[in-house]
Amino acid sequence: MSGRLAVIGLGPGDARYVTPDALAALAAADALYGYGPYLDRVPAREGQSRHASDNRQEGARATAALRAAAAGASVALVSGGDPGVFAMAAAVCEALAAGPPDWRSLDVTIVPGVTAMLAVAARVGAPLGHDFCALSLSDNLKPWELIERRLDAAAGAGFVIALYNPISRARPWQLGRAFERLRSLLPPTTPVVFGRAVGRADERVTVTTLAAADPNAADMATLLIVGSGETHVIERPGRTPLVYTSRSAQGTSA
Amino acid sequence: MSGRLAVIGLGPGDARYVTPDALAALAAADALYGYGPYLDRVPAREGQSRHASDNRQEGARATAALRAAAAGASVALVSGGDPGVFAMAAAVCEALAAGPPDWRSLDVTIVPGVTAMLAVAARVGAPLGHDFCALSLSDNLKPWELIERRLDAAAGAGFVIALYNPISRARPWQLGRAFERLRSLLPPTTPVVFGRAVGRADERVTVTTLAAADPNAADMATLLIVGSGETHVIERPGRTPLVYTSRSAQGTSA
Repeated sequence: MSGRLAVIGLGPGDARYVTPDALAALAAADALYGYGPYLDRVPAREGQSRHASDNRQEGARATAALRAAAAGASVALVSGGDPGVFAMAAAVCEALAAGPPDWRSLDVTIVPGVTAMLAVAARVGAPLGHDFCALSLSDNLKPWELIERRLDAAAGAGFVIALYNPISRARPWQLGRAFERLRSLLPPTTPVVFGRAVGRADERVTVTTLAAADPNAADMATLLIVGSGETHVIERPGRTPLVYTSRSAQGTSA
Repeated sequence: MSGRLAVIGLGPGDARYVTPDALAALAAADALYGYGPYLDRVPAREGQSRHASDNRQEGARATAALRAAAAGASVALVSGGDPGVFAMAAAVCEALAAGPPDWRSLDVTIVPGVTAMLAVAARVGAPLGHDFCALSLSDNLKPWELIERRLDAAAGAGFVIALYNPISRARPWQLGRAFERLRSLLPPTTPVVFGRAVGRADERVTVTTLAAADPNAADMATLLIVGSGETHVIERPGRTPLVYTSRSAQGTSA
C-alpha cells in the first residue's frame, strides 16, 4: 500500500511548542484529519484537504484517517499535546487492529509532542521531578472503581499524580470524588497545581493545597498535578511560587 | 536581580525535536551550562560562554548556573528530553531552596521538551495510551525497597510503567531485580519495549515480552516501557509490530 498516516502531536497550544518534526509531517500530508480546534492551529496550505470532526469521535476519526491512507493518500491526523498520551495514537492502533488485514501494511508513524503535564509542570517548577503517574479521570471507558483503585495505589506508594480529563459537562462529580479520596491518603498540605490552557492565550495556572483544592476551579482544558510527600513549595517575593518534587526520597509510607 | 535562568529541554536527541521555544531561549542566553553531550547538541554562537560538567554533578551544575544568573547573566541550563522529568529542573529548585534568599527573586523559567518515554512510545505505537507511571530505577537517592514498593503498586493497579535510568556501571543488578519483581505480578506475555537512544543515529528499539526481557539488552541510554493487562501487540508483515494500550479498561485485578 502506498498510503501513509502520520499521527502528529502539536504540543500544548502555541506554535512555539510545535517541533520541526511535526511541521515536516504536516507539510508532507495531502489530507489533514482532526478535532476542529486542533486543525485550526495548522496554517492552511493549497491542495491539502481538511476533515474536522467532533472531540468525542476518536474511533470514527481514526478509522476515517486509516481509510484515506489505505486509499493511497498521505494523511496527517493531528492531536493536541502528545498523540500517545490519552489521545489519538491509541485510537488509531485500536482501529487498525479491528480493521481489514491490509491496513497492517500501511506506513503509520507517530510524531511525539509536549504533553500537557510537561507544560503545566514547567510553568511552576518541577513537580514531576521524581516518580509520577498520569491518570485519566474519565470513566467513559473504564469503571470508576478502577480509577479509585489507581488513585489509592499511586498516592499510597508516593507517586506524584497528573490528572488528565478531570471534569466535563457529562462527568461533573469525578474530580470532587478524587479529591476526597486523595484527602484520606495524603496530608492536607500536599501541593496541588491547576494548569488551564497552558501555552494558550487564556492560560491560567494556580498552586493550592489538597485541603483547599476546589473541583469547580477545573474545566475540560485543565490538567492537575497532585504532589507526593516529597513535593515542596518555594515562596518567592513578587513571583508565583515554585513547586518541585525532590530527586531524593525516603521509604516512609505516604 | 537582573539575571535570568532558563532550564531548557532539548528533546530526545535530534534537532527535529527541539521546539522553537527552546531555540529562542538558547538564543537569548549569554552563558550555557550543561552535561557535555547535551551542550554539544547546541550550535556554537559567538559571545556565548559554555560550561560543561559531568553527568553526575546535577546539584553542582544547578548551583553554578544559579550563581551565574544571580551575578546578572542570562543563563541557559540545557537538559536532554524534558528538564522536568528526572532531570535538571528539580535540581535547580533544590539548589534554589538551599541557596541565599535573594536567589528567590531570580527570573527562572523552565522550557519543556519531549521526554524519552514519549519518543520511545511514538516509535512503537501507543503503549502509553492509557494510565501509566514513570519510575526511576536509580537507587542513588532513594532506597531500593521504595522502588520495589512502587513497582508493586503500579503493576498491581494496572498502570503501564516507563522505567528511566534502568542500569549503569554502578547499578548493574537493579533492572534484573525489577524484571523478577514484575514477573511475579504480571503475565509472562506482557509486552516490554526497549528504546535505546531514540532520536539519535544509534537508535535501537525492540519489542519483547516480560518473560523474555533481558536486562543485559539495556544500557544507560535505554528507556523501557512495561505494558499492563490492556497493552496489545499488532504484528505487521515486513514492519515492526505496533504496541498500544487500549483506551478502555476493565476493573479486573492485574
